[in-house]
Amino acid sequence: MPQFLNAQDADFESRFTALLSAKREDSPDVDAVVAGIIADVQTRGDAAVIELTSKFDRLDLTPETLRFSEEEIDALCAQVTPDERAALELAAARIRAYHARQMPQDESWTDDSGATLGWRWTAVSAAGLYVPGGLASYPSSVLMNAIPAKVAGVGRLAIVVPTPDGEANPLVLLAARLAGVDEVYRIGGAQAVAALAYGTDTIAPVDKITGPGNAFVAAAKRRVFGKVGIDMIAGPSEILVIADKDNNPDWIALDLLSQAEHDESAQSILITDDAAFGRAVSNAVEARLETLERRAIAGASWRDFGAVITVPDLDTAAKLSDRIAPEHLELCVADPDTLSEKITHAGAIFLGQFTPEAIGDYVGGPNHVLPTARSARFSSGLSVMDFLKRTTLSKMTPEGLRAIGPAAETLAQSESLEAHGLSVTARLDALNK
Amino acid sequence: MPQFLNAQDADFESRFTALLSAKREDSPDVDAVVAGIIADVQTRGDAAVIELTSKFDRLDLTPETLRFSEEEIDALCAQVTPDERAALELAAARIRAYHARQMPQDESWTDDSGATLGWRWTAVSAAGLYVPGGLASYPSSVLMNAIPAKVAGVGRLAIVVPTPDGEANPLVLLAARLAGVDEVYRIGGAQAVAALAYGTDTIAPVDKITGPGNAFVAAAKRRVFGKVGIDMIAGPSEILVIADKDNNPDWIALDLLSQAEHDESAQSILITDDAAFGRAVSNAVEARLETLERRAIAGASWRDFGAVITVPDLDTAAKLSDRIAPEHLELCVADPDTLSEKITHAGAIFLGQFTPEAIGDYVGGPNHVLPTARSARFSSGLSVMDFLKRTTLSKMTPEGLRAIGPAAETLAQSESLEAHGLSVTARLDALNK
Repeated sequence: MPQFLNAQDADFESRFTALLSAKREDSPDVDAVVAGIIADVQTRGDAAVIELTSKFDRLDLTPETLRFSEEEIDALCAQVTPDERAALELAAARIRAYHARQMPQDESWTDDSGATLGWRWTAVSAAGLYVPGGLASYPSSVLMNAIPAKVAGVGRLAIVVPTPDGEANPLVLLAARLAGVDEVYRIGGAQAVAALAYGTDTIAPVDKITGPGNAFVAAAKRRVFGKVGIDMIAGPSEILVIADKDNNPDWIALDLLSQAEHDESAQSILITDDAAFGRAVSNAVEARLETLERRAIAGASWRDFGAVITVPDLDTAAKLSDRIAPEHLELCVADPDTLSEKITHAGAIFLGQFTPEAIGDYVGGPNHVLPTARSARFSSGLSVMDFLKRTTLSKMTPEGLRAIGPAAETLAQSESLEAHGLSVTARLDALNK
Repeated sequence: MPQFLNAQDADFESRFTALLSAKREDSPDVDAVVAGIIADVQTRGDAAVIELTSKFDRLDLTPETLRFSEEEIDALCAQVTPDERAALELAAARIRAYHARQMPQDESWTDDSGATLGWRWTAVSAAGLYVPGGLASYPSSVLMNAIPAKVAGVGRLAIVVPTPDGEANPLVLLAARLAGVDEVYRIGGAQAVAALAYGTDTIAPVDKITGPGNAFVAAAKRRVFGKVGIDMIAGPSEILVIADKDNNPDWIALDLLSQAEHDESAQSILITDDAAFGRAVSNAVEARLETLERRAIAGASWRDFGAVITVPDLDTAAKLSDRIAPEHLELCVADPDTLSEKITHAGAIFLGQFTPEAIGDYVGGPNHVLPTARSARFSSGLSVMDFLKRTTLSKMTPEGLRAIGPAAETLAQSESLEAHGLSVTARLDALNK
C-alpha cells in the first residue's frame, strides 16, 4: 500500500516534507574502482579496454572487433520485425521533427554605440552516447539521445553499448542506424566512458558524453567531466499524476505503474481532489499488480515510495506539484491547459487523459531524458542545446570605443587591473591624437 | 620569455600538443574540509555560519547582521565616486540590453496526428551568487552574473560576499543594487555555498548557485550540485590573439597582458602570420612588464604559459585556434569577419583591432563568464539560459492516440515494459469499443 495523505490533515506538512526528502537511491561508492579503470584506459588504451571487456562482459575482442562492422549491423537490423522497425521509424521521425524546432537562431545587430554584437551557435564536433546493456538496453533511449545530437549537427556520433557474452540487442543497432549514428562499439562500463573521453588507438576521443548507465558509468561520467561535457546524472524515474474524479481509475493506475515498473526506487504519486477516486486508483493498482510481469519491481516502488494525496482543490494540487518538481507530470483534469499554466517546475507535462506518459517515452516527440530528484527546479530535459554551444561576438568601431572605452578604463582601475585599462587607453590615445 | 613555435617546424606538432595539455592549475584537495563545513551548516545552520565567519573572516556576526541592511547598502553606495557609478550604470545597461535579446521563445504547434506539442520556459525561482572577497572582488562579475538572472526572471536573487575584517567593497554593493539583487549576505567560503544550498533560519535556500570562488568554493559547489544547480567551475583565464603584421605591437602586448595579469596560471597566446611581428609583440610585452603594477603575476604567467606561434597563413591560425578552443579570441586582422567564420570553438570572439578583450570584460554587453580549459568545445558562456528551464508539453487527441499509440505499444513490448504498453492499450480499447 502507498502512503495516503490529505492536504487538510494537521500532520500533512510534516508528512509531505518527509515524502519529498525520502532518500530513494543508495548509490554504491565505486569511485576508487572507477578512478583505477580510467587511469588504466588512459595509460594502456585499447589493451585495457579489451582486458576489462573480457573480465566484465565475458567477451574477447581485438582492436579490429571493438567496433561493430557495417555488415554486422546489417545482419542485426535484419532480425528486427517489420512491426518493430515501423514503430522505431515512426518514433524517430516524430522525435526528429520535435527537436528540429528547438534549433536556436544566430543573432547579430548594431547598437547605438556603433558596436556590432551578437552570437553564433555551433555544434559539438564529436559526441559519445552510452547505452546500457542487458535488461535496461532501451532502443528508445538511443533515439532520444542520438537524434538531438544529429539534429544539432554533431559531425561524429559514437555509441558504446556493452554486449555481455556477445549478445547484442538488434533494436539498439537499428535505432542507432535510424538516428544516423556513425560508430558503434561493443564495450561498456567505466572503461567505455574513459575510452570516449580520452581516446584509444581505435576510438577517437569525443567532446561530450551523454546517456544513462549504472553506478560505474555515472561515477566515470562525473570523473571525466571537464575533460569532456556530460549530460545530467539521472536518478530513478518519477511520475506525478493530478487527476479529478472523471477519470478511469485503471488508466491512472497503469500510468502510475508505468514508472513504478522501471525501478524499485521509482516514485509514483497521485494527487486528486476526490478521496474516493484516490482509493479507487489505489485499488486498481493493486488489481493490476496481481498480474503485471514486473510486479515485484513495480510493487516495491509503489509500496515504498508511492503516495495518494487528497487536496481540497486543483490550485493546491498545482502548488504541491511545484514543490515536488516532478520529472513527468500528467494533468488528467477537465481543463488541463489552464491547470498547466499554474505549474512552474516540471520536466515534461502530459495534458489530458489521452496523453499517457508512455506516449512521451516513445513516440510523442519531446525528449524522454528529463530532470529527476526535484532538479526540474533548475534544469531541463535533453535537447539540441546539449549538443550546441554559443560563441559571443563583439566588434567595436573607433567611434564606439571612444563612447564606451572610458567606462571600461574606470572599472579596470577600480578593480586594480591596470593592463585591462591600458589596452583601452593605448587605443583611445591613438584615436585622440 | 614565452615559448616561440612555428607551425612549419618539424617539432611543431609535439610542442603544440604539449602546450595544449600543460597543466596550469594545481587545485589543493580541500574536499574533506569542505564536506565537514557543509555538514556543519546543514546541522547547525546560522550558528555554524557565524562561527566559521568569525574564524575565517575575523568578523563577529549575529543572525540579525548576517545580511546587509538597506541602510548599510545605501551608505556604502554613497562612497562610490560619480565616475565609477556612471561606468557601472553604463555597463549594467549594456549587459542588460545584450542579455534581453537572449530570452528564448515558448512554442506550441499541432502536428499531423492532431497532437499539440511544444515547450515553455520558466525562470529558476531563487538563485544565489557567490562573489569573492578581497583582491578578486570584482563588481563587473556581480553585473555579469546578476543581470542575466534578473533578465531571465529569477524572483529572488541573493548574493554572498565575504568581508574579511568587516571590510566591504562599495562597488560590489552598488553593482548588486544596479543589477536588482534582493539580498546580500556578508559571508563567504564553503559555509556560504552550504547556506545557499541548504538554507538556514536566516537564509532561505536557493535553486541555483553561480559565481567564481577559490578552491573551497569550487569544491563546495561540486558537492551541492544535484541539490541545486551550479554554473561551470571556471579555470584560470585565457586569451588567444590572432594578429597580422598591420597591428600596433603594443596594443596586442597589452591585450595579452590583460589576461596574464589575472593569475599566474593564466595563459596568453599570440598566433601571427609574421614572425617579425611576433617578436615585436614579445618585445612590447617585456617593455610593459617593466612598469606594470601586477608585473609579478603577469610576468610569471607570460613566462610559464605564454606562447607566440608563427603560421604560414590565417587558415592555419583558425585551425590551431579550434584546437585551443580559447575562452577569449581576438581577431586583429584585415578581415576579421571572414576569419571568424572559420572558427568553431571559442567562448567569445572580439573582432578587429578596436575591440580589446577588456571591453568585453566590462562594457561590451556579452557575458564575461566564459568556458576555460578547452571547454568551449562543448560549453558556452553564462547567459539567461542558465537561469531558465524548459518544460515540454504534449497533448494527444483520441484520434492522435489511435494513430501513434500502437507504435508505443510495440516499443513497450520490445523493451519488456508491460505497464507502459497497457497504459496505451487500455485507452485504445475504450476508444475502439
